[in-house]
Amino acid sequence: MTREELFSTIKKKKSFLCVGLDTDITKVPKHLLKANDPVFEFNKHIIDATNDLCVSYKPNIAFYETQGAQGWISLEKTINYINKTCSSVFTIADAKRGDIGNTSKMYAKAFLETLNFDSITVAPYMGEDSVTPFLEYKNKWVILLALTSNKGAEDFQTTAISKGEKFLYQHVLETSKKWSTPDNMMYVVGATKAEMLTDIRKIVPDNFLLVPGVGAQGGSLHDVAKFGMNKQCGLLVNSSRGIIYASSSEDFAEKAREEAMKLQKEMETLLEKYLR
Amino acid sequence: MTREELFSTIKKKKSFLCVGLDTDITKVPKHLLKANDPVFEFNKHIIDATNDLCVSYKPNIAFYETQGAQGWISLEKTINYINKTCSSVFTIADAKRGDIGNTSKMYAKAFLETLNFDSITVAPYMGEDSVTPFLEYKNKWVILLALTSNKGAEDFQTTAISKGEKFLYQHVLETSKKWSTPDNMMYVVGATKAEMLTDIRKIVPDNFLLVPGVGAQGGSLHDVAKFGMNKQCGLLVNSSRGIIYASSSEDFAEKAREEAMKLQKEMETLLEKYLR
Repeated sequence: MTREELFSTIKKKKSFLCVGLDTDITKVPKHLLKANDPVFEFNKHIIDATNDLCVSYKPNIAFYETQGAQGWISLEKTINYINKTCSSVFTIADAKRGDIGNTSKMYAKAFLETLNFDSITVAPYMGEDSVTPFLEYKNKWVILLALTSNKGAEDFQTTAISKGEKFLYQHVLETSKKWSTPDNMMYVVGATKAEMLTDIRKIVPDNFLLVPGVGAQGGSLHDVAKFGMNKQCGLLVNSSRGIIYASSSEDFAEKAREEAMKLQKEMETLLEKYLR
Repeated sequence: MTREELFSTIKKKKSFLCVGLDTDITKVPKHLLKANDPVFEFNKHIIDATNDLCVSYKPNIAFYETQGAQGWISLEKTINYINKTCSSVFTIADAKRGDIGNTSKMYAKAFLETLNFDSITVAPYMGEDSVTPFLEYKNKWVILLALTSNKGAEDFQTTAISKGEKFLYQHVLETSKKWSTPDNMMYVVGATKAEMLTDIRKIVPDNFLLVPGVGAQGGSLHDVAKFGMNKQCGLLVNSSRGIIYASSSEDFAEKAREEAMKLQKEMETLLEKYLR
């Protein structure tokens, strides 16, 4: 999916919502456990109930890998189902990969070719040659970790570096900009640091930002829009648990839709207010 | 496996060799392609031919994921085969994972419980709560990226930070030491930087170091032993392509054994010389 196509989808759906498919087999409603593949069955219902309200789905790969090969089968079915049934949805493999060049090339093939995701989250610690193999696929994207929403972000990401009086995450943004364009690179920016978005937008005014911290991880959607939105929206805001586990009963998909709609409505207002 | 057991294995086998199972389906000898699971068949032969010469196996997870669910089946068979047939071998899931706490917990379960690896490589960028879920398994290990062997290591790992006039990777070592002990934490240190090992040993004198850069990635085994060995050896030196692709014909396992033996013999000499 191109940047223009993504922006066009955001305008059409009046939403910049990403639904996180952090599907935990221990949290799937009991009545689904008798299905052949309960994780896929759960995802299918969530996707059917929310795809007109969101612009993106983000399966969290850890939740699938924890089930071994069966988890990968559920993941394959899920991405194939999205690609088949949702005409304009941006898919994110939330995998946080990154390794030396020939290994990153393998991860890129796994997620952007074999599974055919639109994008993958990548960790920056190993530098340029660990990231660029993911950039070689046309109309596919890297979503690089910049500033995450967890407590541990303070351990290294906000460490001050000697050159230029800045933080490591700013150095990551400035350096990785040189390897990429706003047409193939997005950044993960935690919503718990909404006030930092102004500084981040000075470095990467045009890139899309994936904001994972709304809902269970905290963070204000209004602040994210106010400080982070650019002229093509430039935001994908994720909610996982708040949507997919809104109910643990047979009405889980219906309740998920209600929660997704609340966020979509809020986003519609914010787009009217801040999209310039 | 405990640190004492690992050291005891090193002394018994006179080796600190780790064989990297970077098994690429496109490089598997042609006669194996008719097997039901060529990747597992290849690994099985390599394991049978080398397990008395090495103390560790390290499947590179990317090479399996690139085959989708089938790759995970090959991986499961491989780790199960090692755990069943090799009595004293330390297994490493070279996965470079790391995410927010509840997600890292899922990755930990996937690799240390479901697949039952002894250890997993972890990326430090997301900080303490992204790493500690992996440390909660008894006699299992985190192998944290500190200084890698690729060119991209210069992008962020060797960035000077303001506090204490040190590099980021030194800050990673100092900080992560506080979360762990030398009984559950090792570090990835690229062999192309053997001269930096002296500095690294000042910070982490007792931890085992996983050195990936001998062979195809360059680096001198002698220098690694000279500057990196401690009183419990404290080193696992990996070779992947140099061993497993020593021949692309029917004699691949035999040739892999020859290459592994060359390294084991060299390691035997180095253990005699530098083990204090």
